[in-house]
Amino acid sequence: CAPLQDFQTFVFLDLETTGLPHDQPRLAELCLFAVHRRSLQCSLLPGTPQLPRIIDKLTLCVDPQKPFTLEAERITGLSNRNLEENCKADFNRGVVDILKGFLQRQMGPICLVAHNGLGFDFPLLRAELWRVDTDLPPSTGCLDTLPALKELERSPGMSYQLGALFRHFYGREPVRAHSAEGDVVTLLLVFLAKAPELMTWAARNARSWGEIPPMYLRSRSRN
Amino acid sequence: CAPLQDFQTFVFLDLETTGLPHDQPRLAELCLFAVHRRSLQCSLLPGTPQLPRIIDKLTLCVDPQKPFTLEAERITGLSNRNLEENCKADFNRGVVDILKGFLQRQMGPICLVAHNGLGFDFPLLRAELWRVDTDLPPSTGCLDTLPALKELERSPGMSYQLGALFRHFYGREPVRAHSAEGDVVTLLLVFLAKAPELMTWAARNARSWGEIPPMYLRSRSRN
Repeated sequence: CAPLQDFQTFVFLDLETTGLPHDQPRLAELCLFAVHRRSLQCSLLPGTPQLPRIIDKLTLCVDPQKPFTLEAERITGLSNRNLEENCKADFNRGVVDILKGFLQRQMGPICLVAHNGLGFDFPLLRAELWRVDTDLPPSTGCLDTLPALKELERSPGMSYQLGALFRHFYGREPVRAHSAEGDVVTLLLVFLAKAPELMTWAARNARSWGEIPPMYLRSRSRN
Repeated sequence: CAPLQDFQTFVFLDLETTGLPHDQPRLAELCLFAVHRRSLQCSLLPGTPQLPRIIDKLTLCVDPQKPFTLEAERITGLSNRNLEENCKADFNRGVVDILKGFLQRQMGPICLVAHNGLGFDFPLLRAELWRVDTDLPPSTGCLDTLPALKELERSPGMSYQLGALFRHFYGREPVRAHSAEGDVVTLLLVFLAKAPELMTWAARNARSWGEIPPMYLRSRSRN
């Protein structure tokens, strides 16, 4: 039983990739918005989705070194061709250094937040990190808003897909679905609609990064 | 006479600070959007401001360690209190490592782009870097869109303030003025309205980082 964690910073995360888990996808775009808990405490008025003023943001495009599925290309607006034409580097140590520097700058303890994070984003990011023989600190918190909101926001016949949650809370369509940043904005606004409850839920139920199984293992020897 | 530079990546930059140059301001927020020249080559239809799909983005808030002027607090929405409450660190080596990592990831040669950059953003950023005993590579390009557009877009009685240029090109108001990211979005869209001309102008007229005088020197011994 892990100790209760009073997370100081929540880092909202989304990854765009070449495909679905059974495709053993590679990362093509990542976005992180880091928000201190202080900026998550004020309740929002219904119908007025508004981001906090103070957010650290990072968005990086990555050459995935693997073909996109047609569906992934269609929904993300990314393709092998446009990433190559824009001379994007692959997921290398350079990305990792930026990512770690970005997280280290935030007041800890940190909790990563992703929608279906346990099913997709966290295991994929861990697979990418292991591929370049690195990792995040194992005590980093991991909150998946999908099971959290299934427990906290019960309503008959409700869909817990991210866009549906946004429509449920704000009565409008989210913007820029399936760009990493667009989905992070939607996730953060959904979080803000239930922020006190989600922060309490995270303190009790967040997993730790060290428990996250990588989505797949690739030609890597590890002790 | 510097050689013509065929810049591969343009990095659009804006800084929010505690005040104006005569206040010896400190940095409170920085934002960079890195766009490969490939994504700047297609002309935009008039009236449809739209960002390229592939952009690397970085936004960081910084505790400026100096009081904001009332005017800077008013226009930026930032304050010493809200930055402290959000536990932002100061402009330290951690910020520099992220910034340098972000720039190193881009295909070079790189050209920084800022509106009134020679008058404000570049000298201030160099002062902040010198304060922590570091610097950017001296050959990094520096494009100030203010003199560039004064030369390229001549129209009687025209204002070259960034918001006025945006209204001139797109016939609408820019969004989120005086957040660092809002101003970078506006700058990038203004650039896109004249991108081929501005890229040619940059190849001939960009300054190099090594020529930028820091805005001020502060208690620093340097050989």
